[in-house]
Amino acid sequence: MSHVVRIGMLGCGTVGQGVVGILHETAGTIERATGHRLEIAKVLVRDLQADRPGLDRGVLTTDVEDILGDDRIDIIIEVMGGVEPTREWLLRALGHGTSVVTANKQLLARHGPELLAAAEEGGSELRFEASVCAAIPVIKVLREALLAAEIESVMGIVNGTTNYILSEMRRSGMSYGDALRQAQDLGYAEADPTEDVGGGDAAAKMAILSSIAFHTRVLIDDVPYSGIDALQSDDVDIAHELGFVMKLLGIARLVDGAVSVRVEPALVPGDHPLASVGGADNAVLLESSMVRQIMLEGPGAGGTETASAVVSDVLSIMGSRPGSFLAGALADAGRPMAPEGSLESAFYVRLEVADQPGVLARVSSVLGESDVSILTVLQRGEGESARLVMILHRAPEGRVRQAIGRLADMPEVREQPVLITVVGSGEAPR
Amino acid sequence: MSHVVRIGMLGCGTVGQGVVGILHETAGTIERATGHRLEIAKVLVRDLQADRPGLDRGVLTTDVEDILGDDRIDIIIEVMGGVEPTREWLLRALGHGTSVVTANKQLLARHGPELLAAAEEGGSELRFEASVCAAIPVIKVLREALLAAEIESVMGIVNGTTNYILSEMRRSGMSYGDALRQAQDLGYAEADPTEDVGGGDAAAKMAILSSIAFHTRVLIDDVPYSGIDALQSDDVDIAHELGFVMKLLGIARLVDGAVSVRVEPALVPGDHPLASVGGADNAVLLESSMVRQIMLEGPGAGGTETASAVVSDVLSIMGSRPGSFLAGALADAGRPMAPEGSLESAFYVRLEVADQPGVLARVSSVLGESDVSILTVLQRGEGESARLVMILHRAPEGRVRQAIGRLADMPEVREQPVLITVVGSGEAPR
Repeated sequence: MSHVVRIGMLGCGTVGQGVVGILHETAGTIERATGHRLEIAKVLVRDLQADRPGLDRGVLTTDVEDILGDDRIDIIIEVMGGVEPTREWLLRALGHGTSVVTANKQLLARHGPELLAAAEEGGSELRFEASVCAAIPVIKVLREALLAAEIESVMGIVNGTTNYILSEMRRSGMSYGDALRQAQDLGYAEADPTEDVGGGDAAAKMAILSSIAFHTRVLIDDVPYSGIDALQSDDVDIAHELGFVMKLLGIARLVDGAVSVRVEPALVPGDHPLASVGGADNAVLLESSMVRQIMLEGPGAGGTETASAVVSDVLSIMGSRPGSFLAGALADAGRPMAPEGSLESAFYVRLEVADQPGVLARVSSVLGESDVSILTVLQRGEGESARLVMILHRAPEGRVRQAIGRLADMPEVREQPVLITVVGSGEAPR
Repeated sequence: MSHVVRIGMLGCGTVGQGVVGILHETAGTIERATGHRLEIAKVLVRDLQADRPGLDRGVLTTDVEDILGDDRIDIIIEVMGGVEPTREWLLRALGHGTSVVTANKQLLARHGPELLAAAEEGGSELRFEASVCAAIPVIKVLREALLAAEIESVMGIVNGTTNYILSEMRRSGMSYGDALRQAQDLGYAEADPTEDVGGGDAAAKMAILSSIAFHTRVLIDDVPYSGIDALQSDDVDIAHELGFVMKLLGIARLVDGAVSVRVEPALVPGDHPLASVGGADNAVLLESSMVRQIMLEGPGAGGTETASAVVSDVLSIMGSRPGSFLAGALADAGRPMAPEGSLESAFYVRLEVADQPGVLARVSSVLGESDVSILTVLQRGEGESARLVMILHRAPEGRVRQAIGRLADMPEVREQPVLITVVGSGEAPR
């Protein structure tokens, strides 16, 4: 028996449309996992005429009362942003028992405690995974998995724009200005990048994360921040020479029971887990004496990624029963096992061969006959024998093994060939 | 009003004692988060006489009936290991409504579906975070946060022993045999390392992870595996030369709806997120088109770490109400904000100085007077001015800023000094 859970959405931009798409796509999983069916009952929009794939025009409204005043709505998804009137609307919803999922970091970093208190009073739930690091489930991990882990430090790369800019400055020696322009061209930075490059975005996220990690009130005004806009390229280069990597870091620590939170450009040793977080990725490193260091890494932005976090919160509120769901899914082998050799992969091959002219030609012709092609080859003579190391282009494993079997039968091949899977395309990193 | 939740423990070795310790230490947090008080009611042990800190002798028993037959016990924590009679005991408990938390990967990889079905039938819960990667909350993330994320691939370094050995082979050029002996000396490998180095341990974990990620039955017998014991040092070195890193990987993928899972030594490009997972760390990389790549990294073993995962599962079963807990914790500023400048850190300092004899001596004497000491110094002349870059030992920020202020006042210092936080001790990585 399946009960219908009715959703009201405030806003329907990129994230909102992503939510609609995911809810459609995963309706079956959601129903099996929660026992409930989701229905998007009403969506607050500015323009009733704009095309919104997957949504009936009948659910659109420009009047927020159609959502706040409808007590058949079980969960409100807030993806409109802004502090006011959003705060007032959400307080009202939470206060009379409607649970809320929001992606609004500025609102939470300013009024999170007030909203949580309203939820407590109204017997509703407030969830906000999407407000920090998109689909990286750092809030759920802190609120639930590590609730009793006595976290002592939260260190994070929580802004993707600045991480992209710093990674490019380091990788290609670009100036800050050029890297920023490139980030803007690629859509990693906005036309007015102040909020990102100045550190304000990261400060809001660190206020939220440190509140949850340390179980105490931290608001955005408690978080001093500086950005990467005043950074000198020279310092990035010198730090690199010395073995450090420049990152815009959120650093939150318990110091003798007091809370210290800040955002600033900082240097990370090259072998530190945060040093290798490249591109526009985000990562949060959580430390406690109980769990040592746990790091969560992934894309910190993106419409679908953020929408996925929203949907995850909706499932938490609906009370998914993961055990029951798994019991059902594992009752039989729902999916077949893939036939052996079907997986496609790049490969490393090492051959010890007789050092005769034409061996490489014969080896590559045998591979070619099996439709296996060579990406990289490394040949080294060692007296009368030679070593041939190849990286093979991606191909189904069965076909590659067959080809290697034929190589093993060649009289010039002196030992059993070594075959090792290579993750990715087989291209060596730059 | 606080209700008492009664715990029965099966086994009390390193992990069990860790659980007892954490439950004592975090009793207050647990009571606030769940509304319930935990009581360790009975503990099954082999030897009643051994000393077990934090446990009353009165709760110890050698008779499992004292636990299985006591219907006042709400949750059983299984940390005794082994497949039989553990399986039979847990089936019985789950079947008559007692929830179970277990760290037993071999049991789950063989009989997980049967145990989940028993829980479903008995209306109890089965949780097993500690069975894979200790405190890294990968199971909770897969079961809950990414339940509807349509995971397509799970790739993981899920065995710490082999990761330690491979990392050492790469770092120091050691042979496999030497690295294994070193791992044994340091307690990272057991006297009989077969289960770890042969890949069997990783295969059990991959069976569990892929079941949950792909919502289908995968048992250990479905997972072909090979280990690092037959690996040639030559291949590790050549791969490194080519820009790849050797890892013992669990690789699970959906291929046209079918499941492919295996464990094998594989090559990872040097800039891949898994490449930088060093030492005995574990990491799991989850991929889907919805969330792109999310990686969780941390220690994959350890008594306290594993115990922390067990406690986290107990909290999940007790039904912690993270919203209420946070609302309470954030109602006021429970912890003070640390006074500015109190945080201790290493620092990077860049000074542009006049290139005169004795400048470095004067700079270091000014720093010394403020009890700030220099770890590394880099001096470069550029015509009549010179650049002085220093890494300072860890010291309270306020004291360092004061010292830098005094440097700024020196007539030889030509520009405002640059001061940047350095994460860690300030030592450059090897």
